[in-house]
Amino acid sequence: MSNESVSERSLEPLFYPRSVAVLGASQNPNKLGYIQIKALIDGQFGGEIFPINPKSTEIEGLACYSSITDVPKPVDLAIFCVSANQIQQSLEECAQKKVKAAIIFASGFSETGEEGARQQEALAEIARKNGIRLIGPNCVGMVNTLNGLVGTFSPGVMVHPLNDNRAVGYVSQSGAFGVLTYMAAAQHGLTFNYFVTVGNEMETEFADIVQYMVHDPNTKVISGYLEGAKDPAKLRRLAKEALDCNKPMIVMKTGRSSAGSRAAASHTGSLAGADQVYDAFFKQTGMIRANDYEEIISFSKLFLSGKLPSGRNTVIITSSGGRGINEADRCEAHGLKIIPLREETKAKIKKNVPSFASTSNPIDLTAAAAVTNPELFIAPLRALIEDPEIDNIILTEFPMHWDADHPLLQEFIEICKSSDKFIFVTTFPLQGMSIPKGAAEMEKNGIPVVTGDLQPMSALAKLVDYSEKYRRNKNANALAEQRKVQANELKGTLESLLKPGVTLSEFEASEILERYQISTAQKALAATAEEAVRCAERIGYPVVLKVDSKDIPHKTDADAIRLYLQNEHEVIDAYADILRSAKKYNPDAVINGVSVQEMLPKGIEVIIGVTKDPVFGPVIMFGLGGIFVETLKDVSFRVAPLTRQDAVEMIEEIKGKAILTGVRGQAPADREAIIDVLLKVSELISDSEGMIDELDINPLIVYENGLKAADALIVTNSRAAEKTEIGG
Amino acid sequence: MSNESVSERSLEPLFYPRSVAVLGASQNPNKLGYIQIKALIDGQFGGEIFPINPKSTEIEGLACYSSITDVPKPVDLAIFCVSANQIQQSLEECAQKKVKAAIIFASGFSETGEEGARQQEALAEIARKNGIRLIGPNCVGMVNTLNGLVGTFSPGVMVHPLNDNRAVGYVSQSGAFGVLTYMAAAQHGLTFNYFVTVGNEMETEFADIVQYMVHDPNTKVISGYLEGAKDPAKLRRLAKEALDCNKPMIVMKTGRSSAGSRAAASHTGSLAGADQVYDAFFKQTGMIRANDYEEIISFSKLFLSGKLPSGRNTVIITSSGGRGINEADRCEAHGLKIIPLREETKAKIKKNVPSFASTSNPIDLTAAAAVTNPELFIAPLRALIEDPEIDNIILTEFPMHWDADHPLLQEFIEICKSSDKFIFVTTFPLQGMSIPKGAAEMEKNGIPVVTGDLQPMSALAKLVDYSEKYRRNKNANALAEQRKVQANELKGTLESLLKPGVTLSEFEASEILERYQISTAQKALAATAEEAVRCAERIGYPVVLKVDSKDIPHKTDADAIRLYLQNEHEVIDAYADILRSAKKYNPDAVINGVSVQEMLPKGIEVIIGVTKDPVFGPVIMFGLGGIFVETLKDVSFRVAPLTRQDAVEMIEEIKGKAILTGVRGQAPADREAIIDVLLKVSELISDSEGMIDELDINPLIVYENGLKAADALIVTNSRAAEKTEIGG
Repeated sequence: MSNESVSERSLEPLFYPRSVAVLGASQNPNKLGYIQIKALIDGQFGGEIFPINPKSTEIEGLACYSSITDVPKPVDLAIFCVSANQIQQSLEECAQKKVKAAIIFASGFSETGEEGARQQEALAEIARKNGIRLIGPNCVGMVNTLNGLVGTFSPGVMVHPLNDNRAVGYVSQSGAFGVLTYMAAAQHGLTFNYFVTVGNEMETEFADIVQYMVHDPNTKVISGYLEGAKDPAKLRRLAKEALDCNKPMIVMKTGRSSAGSRAAASHTGSLAGADQVYDAFFKQTGMIRANDYEEIISFSKLFLSGKLPSGRNTVIITSSGGRGINEADRCEAHGLKIIPLREETKAKIKKNVPSFASTSNPIDLTAAAAVTNPELFIAPLRALIEDPEIDNIILTEFPMHWDADHPLLQEFIEICKSSDKFIFVTTFPLQGMSIPKGAAEMEKNGIPVVTGDLQPMSALAKLVDYSEKYRRNKNANALAEQRKVQANELKGTLESLLKPGVTLSEFEASEILERYQISTAQKALAATAEEAVRCAERIGYPVVLKVDSKDIPHKTDADAIRLYLQNEHEVIDAYADILRSAKKYNPDAVINGVSVQEMLPKGIEVIIGVTKDPVFGPVIMFGLGGIFVETLKDVSFRVAPLTRQDAVEMIEEIKGKAILTGVRGQAPADREAIIDVLLKVSELISDSEGMIDELDINPLIVYENGLKAADALIVTNSRAAEKTEIGG
Repeated sequence: MSNESVSERSLEPLFYPRSVAVLGASQNPNKLGYIQIKALIDGQFGGEIFPINPKSTEIEGLACYSSITDVPKPVDLAIFCVSANQIQQSLEECAQKKVKAAIIFASGFSETGEEGARQQEALAEIARKNGIRLIGPNCVGMVNTLNGLVGTFSPGVMVHPLNDNRAVGYVSQSGAFGVLTYMAAAQHGLTFNYFVTVGNEMETEFADIVQYMVHDPNTKVISGYLEGAKDPAKLRRLAKEALDCNKPMIVMKTGRSSAGSRAAASHTGSLAGADQVYDAFFKQTGMIRANDYEEIISFSKLFLSGKLPSGRNTVIITSSGGRGINEADRCEAHGLKIIPLREETKAKIKKNVPSFASTSNPIDLTAAAAVTNPELFIAPLRALIEDPEIDNIILTEFPMHWDADHPLLQEFIEICKSSDKFIFVTTFPLQGMSIPKGAAEMEKNGIPVVTGDLQPMSALAKLVDYSEKYRRNKNANALAEQRKVQANELKGTLESLLKPGVTLSEFEASEILERYQISTAQKALAATAEEAVRCAERIGYPVVLKVDSKDIPHKTDADAIRLYLQNEHEVIDAYADILRSAKKYNPDAVINGVSVQEMLPKGIEVIIGVTKDPVFGPVIMFGLGGIFVETLKDVSFRVAPLTRQDAVEMIEEIKGKAILTGVRGQAPADREAIIDVLLKVSELISDSEGMIDELDINPLIVYENGLKAADALIVTNSRAAEKTEIGG
């Protein structure tokens, strides 16, 4: 696990070594040790290369040393091409030589079981003690295309020409998938600046590489492939930093399905959390979740245009009605809006296109544009960029033969550059027939060209989401609105109320909620029927009676609740009934008494809960109560702690949220009060320092003004046990 | 519009002409008339070719005639390469020559407006009168790759080599999108046997081409691109025929979004119905809806294997953990099941793979399989095909260098052929690096090789759906279970009850439902408060009072309903209240009286309704009542008439269907009774012969045994107007 006190500057020798030693270098072209040397030479690595092999004096014209300790100059990075059983000794020699970074390809460590994990821990110990930053083992290495550091044996990397604009970093927990993504990106004209596979994450993990890229001036987009986050809190902090400096983090997180998670667990030993929680985590951190590698490529290409979309309003220009409709469908499926054009804009377009062209959106220039009149692709643009309602303009075809110097291409570029609108070209993916001649010139001038197989519409929608998050974050930073921390005294109280390792009774749980100023139904505990009557009279009829026992968390199941009690007689009967039911349900239950509560008026029932995720820790849930939670599972999650924005989004995400506006004559719900409870629960959870495993406020009854918790449940664990878990 | 009495045999001269005349043939290589002649020659068309041009004697070695009437032999097909203004005269000459079929490319007809539509109708008239089957105008023609009939000027078609297994037909309402799909399919090794673009569908429409393919022995899969169906009833009959003979119909229907629909309307003049109704139509006909052209290609390739999947249980074999997880995610996203393997199967696999390979699903053979031990790809197969729980086996990588004669490839093929399990290979899409050498040999032997960009997991899921529908249809045909038609007398009654062009009052609508044996709340109409009391006493308290007026269809909005009336006094008050409210709401309303109804006990509220779709006619809707319909819009549709299976699926599709099983202590709903009402409503709609525009049973209260309609609404239109609409 990474040591956070070590700054990401210590990764500099991994990314920009002045010299590289290849341990196990070889003259045999079939050996890893040769392939690695050759890769560094072919990659035109800028620093010195030292082959290490006791049996050779020279490899590919480079002087060879019998041991790394024999190298006469300092070595920044060591690449291990030796077999697993030689690694420990070699690593110790590296330590002796004061090597600063290492790459270990070999497998056979923690991924194979306990013995492998033990050996790996021994290596990690050496690396940590000597300050060696290290990727692997069980990885395919890394590439820095900015300095020719090809630290990998993988044949696929580097067969494609390097693209000019190399500003997207990529880090992967999967070697093979990483290589495939690198190659696919390269085929689409996107060369990553850094490509890093982290393997078993023995010393340097996914988030460490992300940290380097966040602070690296050569990186404009951080992308990656993730199976399971080791340190989500660190990732969350980094995501915030990245958002602050407008550096999007787009990550493909696999293991969505249960089956996927199973495989992820066995693949890297990572703990893969429930996918819903990952989704929540991405949303609240501003990280972008790529559905697939294609979206990483297309999102990056769109972002590198240098523009951010101002909204979702999108216009399509096409020369095929069918293509236009199809792309419009995709846009709307991803939440972009294909807006009807204003009459004024239509009229302007009409002047410049033939009568048979359609000036509704999609604008269909017809086959004439494709075959005989390519200048038509430019004609509607001036009108569109003058229309303030439009955010994005997408051309689904483009003249293939316009090269960089073509006057029409230059005119097109000038128009696009004169506007803030987000403009790009997407073509139908046919091998060898999809890339217009002028594509490179266009991209150089901020007009991305993305083939349809890269899911550009989904990428654009994600870029719009990102832009919104970026702008909101900027405003929030400006306002610096911070919730006051006045909780210190509360925290002390909490400690005394949270008995460790138990399920609190409703009465006890409600007391804690009240301390955090979350309103709960007025209640009193009665030990006798007579006392219950006195409580009821004090509270006022009608009342509710419930058993109060930590051993009966689900009181409905035990038939130990009576509602709408109108008078003394009914309370006395109910009291006896409830005790009878409770004893029948669980004869061993310790019963604190019967809780007498005000009968809350009807309102809109919601539920707020907390559960503990094995990866992310406490996760807060919101949902509509009753059948909405139970049957439709219409709930939203966020990882604690919550920001106000998180709370707002949790409510917005609920499919049945219209219920909160009041339907069928019901009064609307007080949303601010719900947001307030969500934030207070988040505070309570923070204060509890991991002691609360589960919390349920169900139902929380929301009125037009205010709300009240009608029931509450808290399950604690022993703090000591908890602390072990966190540190482990 | 097509004439249904004309059999699809009359399309034979279009698909298999013995001779073709090209009107407007030319010697100028830039002219359509030359390109078309050249295309027929290059396509090695099997019949005779007659160029027609008064100014030439010979074109590309073929004798040229000055008029089609001069051709000394019969002409089956005429291809029009003349300009729009010459078409009518040429078509008349074709009629004189007794030409049987024609292709007209030219645009400038109904797609341009009224004048064009008029000219087009004149052409249609000539074609119909003379029995000329005709595609176009405004199309890119057609290709029959089985006989070299390249009846198109489109440059893209035919640049790719023909694949051997040509058994997939394709018909498109879009020319350009059709050509792109043809080319993409060809690049992926799938050549369509027939490729037809229907343009303005003047004489021959989409469904006519489908009909030809349904009855054509050379076609195993019917595919297409549809913007709007002209004759859904015909398509429905054809879909049933196709299903009967195991010929899947996979169609990409665009215009999903509102924007898409808008564009579709302006593109072909087709009426595009609401997308939900199209979805319902696809489901109930057994047609497969492709999300995109990629799914047409991959579905076809999977189907041509000759196997049908037996279910959803899927196992993935991979050599990259990351790839395996990613593909597992995709499988589960599309409803396939990545099942855990049985211990017995795992044990068998373990014997044949190295210890570091993962034997859970996905089975990860690790990089060893990819790099040094390709025989590992075969190792787990024998164990998997012995496991009866597994339906599908997917290999996400495959040795690239095994050619057709490689013994391991032959072994692999033998194993696959020995099993009924559905087995295919999908590879990561990288240009020039994705197709294993042995792919053609594998496909010849029923093992599809599909690159990942073709969405093979979605295609497999759709093939599983298709297989289920095919098998269910086969069983249903065997049982020949037909709902008895005993409705003739009912139909007569209906005619007298359905006053034309009005909104029926609840009382009137309920009477109609009762005739169709749909239970409604017991009710009586009262004209005075005293009469209301007498009715209430006869029905039994508590009762409901509602205004009865066709002018007040929404009684709640008018505050003209009173529930839970317990006694004479309350009835008298309610009677006066209701009349007051009704008059205030609509002073001009004709009020039949006040309806006194039994107060139905609480049950599960559902809604059954009928609406008229501009494309499909009456469409039946089902949903859960109250907020489920109003807020969550959780409803399902089917086009009338319904089969029992349709009714079952309508209920199954509802997201909140668990409500029907009874939640929170509620009794479950009588599903059979709901199915029964759905079928009775369908019968009622059929009997009404288009006279009913809208019908609402809302709420229909469902009990554990039986149900009762608590309210009903029927809106009729005048039958005469309706009949015009149908015929127009």
